[in-house]
Amino acid sequence: MTKTDQRLAAVRGAMRVQNLDGFLVPRADEHLGEYVPPSAERLAWLTGFTGSAGLAVVLAERAAVFTDGRYTLQLAAQSDASLFEFRHLVENPAPAWIASHTSAGARIGYDPMLISEDGLAKYTEAGLTLVAASPNPVDAAWTDRPPPPAATAVPQPLRYAGKSSAEKRAEIAASLRAAKQDAAIVSDPASIAWLLNIRGGDVAYTPFALGFMLIEADATAILFMDPAKLSPATSEWLGNGVSVRGRDALEPALAGLGGKRVAVDASGSPAWFAQRLREGGARVVDAADPCALPKARKNAVEQDGARAAHRRDATAVCRFLHWLDGAARHTTEIGAAQRLLALRAEAAEFRGESFPAISGAGEHGAIIHYRVSEESDRPIRPDETYLIDSGAQYPDGTTDVTRTVWTGPGPAPAELRDRVTRVLRGHIALATAVFPEGVAGPHLDAFARRALWDAGLDYDHGTGHGVGSFLSVHEGPASISRAGRMVPLAEGMILSDEPGYYLPGAYGIRLENLLLVQRADRPGANKPFLHFETLTLAPFDRRLIDETLLTAPERTWLDAYHARVLDQVGPALDAEARAWLEGACRPL
Amino acid sequence: MTKTDQRLAAVRGAMRVQNLDGFLVPRADEHLGEYVPPSAERLAWLTGFTGSAGLAVVLAERAAVFTDGRYTLQLAAQSDASLFEFRHLVENPAPAWIASHTSAGARIGYDPMLISEDGLAKYTEAGLTLVAASPNPVDAAWTDRPPPPAATAVPQPLRYAGKSSAEKRAEIAASLRAAKQDAAIVSDPASIAWLLNIRGGDVAYTPFALGFMLIEADATAILFMDPAKLSPATSEWLGNGVSVRGRDALEPALAGLGGKRVAVDASGSPAWFAQRLREGGARVVDAADPCALPKARKNAVEQDGARAAHRRDATAVCRFLHWLDGAARHTTEIGAAQRLLALRAEAAEFRGESFPAISGAGEHGAIIHYRVSEESDRPIRPDETYLIDSGAQYPDGTTDVTRTVWTGPGPAPAELRDRVTRVLRGHIALATAVFPEGVAGPHLDAFARRALWDAGLDYDHGTGHGVGSFLSVHEGPASISRAGRMVPLAEGMILSDEPGYYLPGAYGIRLENLLLVQRADRPGANKPFLHFETLTLAPFDRRLIDETLLTAPERTWLDAYHARVLDQVGPALDAEARAWLEGACRPL
Repeated sequence: MTKTDQRLAAVRGAMRVQNLDGFLVPRADEHLGEYVPPSAERLAWLTGFTGSAGLAVVLAERAAVFTDGRYTLQLAAQSDASLFEFRHLVENPAPAWIASHTSAGARIGYDPMLISEDGLAKYTEAGLTLVAASPNPVDAAWTDRPPPPAATAVPQPLRYAGKSSAEKRAEIAASLRAAKQDAAIVSDPASIAWLLNIRGGDVAYTPFALGFMLIEADATAILFMDPAKLSPATSEWLGNGVSVRGRDALEPALAGLGGKRVAVDASGSPAWFAQRLREGGARVVDAADPCALPKARKNAVEQDGARAAHRRDATAVCRFLHWLDGAARHTTEIGAAQRLLALRAEAAEFRGESFPAISGAGEHGAIIHYRVSEESDRPIRPDETYLIDSGAQYPDGTTDVTRTVWTGPGPAPAELRDRVTRVLRGHIALATAVFPEGVAGPHLDAFARRALWDAGLDYDHGTGHGVGSFLSVHEGPASISRAGRMVPLAEGMILSDEPGYYLPGAYGIRLENLLLVQRADRPGANKPFLHFETLTLAPFDRRLIDETLLTAPERTWLDAYHARVLDQVGPALDAEARAWLEGACRPL
Repeated sequence: MTKTDQRLAAVRGAMRVQNLDGFLVPRADEHLGEYVPPSAERLAWLTGFTGSAGLAVVLAERAAVFTDGRYTLQLAAQSDASLFEFRHLVENPAPAWIASHTSAGARIGYDPMLISEDGLAKYTEAGLTLVAASPNPVDAAWTDRPPPPAATAVPQPLRYAGKSSAEKRAEIAASLRAAKQDAAIVSDPASIAWLLNIRGGDVAYTPFALGFMLIEADATAILFMDPAKLSPATSEWLGNGVSVRGRDALEPALAGLGGKRVAVDASGSPAWFAQRLREGGARVVDAADPCALPKARKNAVEQDGARAAHRRDATAVCRFLHWLDGAARHTTEIGAAQRLLALRAEAAEFRGESFPAISGAGEHGAIIHYRVSEESDRPIRPDETYLIDSGAQYPDGTTDVTRTVWTGPGPAPAELRDRVTRVLRGHIALATAVFPEGVAGPHLDAFARRALWDAGLDYDHGTGHGVGSFLSVHEGPASISRAGRMVPLAEGMILSDEPGYYLPGAYGIRLENLLLVQRADRPGANKPFLHFETLTLAPFDRRLIDETLLTAPERTWLDAYHARVLDQVGPALDAEARAWLEGACRPL
């Protein structure tokens, strides 16, 4: 009997205790976040699969793991096909699979802390009977589960945050009162970090402290977090308006809100909150996390911080690209990623990577979320593409940049240059867009695709995501994606612009800069307009660009961008690297 | 006491009988359609306001009429400001207005046949107590209400419909079974007309017969319609699978569906249906009208019909533009619209206009939904713009075309030509778009706006709407509009492409063709792609185009389009008109 056999049997045993015919094991923690602590890696514990999107369904006689196209191969490699069927999350959704393998009225258990009310609705709409399990059968079976993380939370000083927590809380409270809400649940640790001007280290890549918060219409807040994570100085920094209570105090606090109108995000917060609140007699209002939008709109100090962080990051990226230009053929994917990390780490302000770098040579570049491992690592070879998508955390800002280079020494093939140039044209089309207030990311996504679409080509990912300020590299609520929510873009938002093109087995192309939304009022404009300021500073590899395919305005944009890169980054480089950058940034 | 005074008092009297503190009077009929019969013009009867979008709210002591920006002036002119407050439908929504003028728990009446469940939700979400009124207090007070229309319904022959009703019903039934639905309510008369291959004449502009339908998973249907509207031949045409019952049989039929899963469109069907079904023990499923999508995807016969209808229509439009070029300065807005109508009516297949023509000279063109009246009519003058937006119904297709011309004899001002050229560039950008399956109209809308956005300009309407096949000129479910639903564009859909620009008090520009969605697979494409075939054939006024602002591909497109117009329309014209068209269509 394998370890997985034993775990599966133990979970089924715990299910039987609760008379459950099935149980859902999503890859999720209690904050429904992207990066989860080891204590919440239930899916990996049960199935071996470590991808960032997935769900296991355990029935009495069979089980399945669902994931998306990014992870199909990884799932097959990590998980045991004799114990789990492998299914596509979207094409073969779990609710239909469960319905086809259970009889009517079967009791399907779920952990209400690990799924939102909107997530639950997909199951109940399929006619399934969902039952909140307590305890979670995985937790019951997982005897050596790690403790929850307990990293220390620290103040985020005003010189980076730009606005005091008291001021932010007053604004959030005013928005609650305007919506006739008495309080709001905040389950996203990034929102707590933003609102309270604190940062932490409970999960990888995103510098927040795990916890929950109740913000009330009088501008006070209760932070539910192990008080041991807060030093006396941090507790004092939180101020009088914020009281700190342990995680155990959460349920009684919700029970005490009877009769109040409490906002809970039905898609972003665990269903547990609305369930407990309703039980306690509160009136639950489905409303977005009240911090999400103000957090996304960076204030002037945060915008300046973002610019400084990007200049600093650009120095490392340009040094890396220079190094790569000579050393590419003597290193590997891991070697290159480590070199970039080391160059970034030279900055005193460096606080870590903002996500695991994607470092893919040749055919590995075509795997959109490729994560190099010791097993997959390979040399970067002559005359192929190399794609590096990486980012860093600095106290004044979060970065995320992708470049695709040609290793040479021979010239890049014409078809590849055609594809790269189409991706670049899409990148430029979005970067130069001018649009009125009210326009949302899904309305602009096609700008970045048109040059590819014209050739019958496309890429199967969104064009851009929001980016936090020394917070999540993937931050809501806005995005530039067809599947994204209709959140109007607004001044101060930071979004990525990262079209790509992938030829499986051959190469991948992605060109990514971060963009900052700014006012762009035109003389005689008949409404307020916005446009983008490009934050990222790094040359695009001219060996991959077919300049004859660019329009005159596109060429002008690229030359001006390269001149700006040289102007802003050049002075920070040594003579050799500067000379290289001058060549990389000379007009086409 | 004015007539309106008396009517308002009578409605309030009828409200008191039902103990109602308020009552909603939307501009709607029982099909929630765009064109309503005189018997359903309750808003106009009560308030005098005849706009196509509006709502009156009658409270005990005050009343208000809500409409949108299109109708602000018309509302003020038609309605009595001493009896009604005038409010903006979107900026000052009715639910908030009611909440601020009533005490908690006030009973707000509504007619469940005149509002959808989604429409009702806006009121209940504002905390209001909604009460289904019976009878409608307006109907109780409206003693000389006209009878419902009773135009004869006739078969739509297979040579136009392209597919038999039995085949269509089998497909719809299969889709119901796939969704595990036993039956679906169809309240949209256009869906009934499409599914049963019949047409009628109960309302202006759209050739359908008012009625309701229940389609069941066994492919049978019950048509609830006054049998007197169906001749024996039409009854026979409906076939065995369709039974016809009077309107009175509707409620008992719904009551008989206890235990069944019945699909009702919560946004498109009156709330009455779901309410009656639930009362009768049916399980109501919120699902889009099952005919909406297949109706929108024209089959090959309908596509050929559309092409024939557009060639026929183009003959009239080109003759009109030729006539206008000489006569513009001797006619008026009404005169021009009548001339175009007369030219269209020369075709044996002409069945009427598809909507009231918008015929606006100079500053009238800036009124987006301008409808010329005897009072507003004015001469078309030298050296100004003239905008004509019109369409026709033919048994093989529905048309909708807008052109903006310069009356001359002087040259058009440079700023105007700049604006027209930007609108034209937007029109071309959409018309030439190539895009993968799965893309919806809201994703493409920005293509039509970019040239305007670049100059800080925009237009406050959608870019395109669906068009029926000898049916509604505004047909769902797809559209090309930021506010539109996310319905992927699909082969066979017909949509308008009509960007514009409006300078209030000066001029209006709109350039509209209809586009047919077609497959556009490219060699080496990595997924199925679509593109547009332009159906409309009429020259764009070159006097308004600044060709120096066009890119080479745009100019190539325009020259090729004009060559096609000349090729397809020229042979149907007399020598003089053909000579004019040759000039209008010569290369730039």
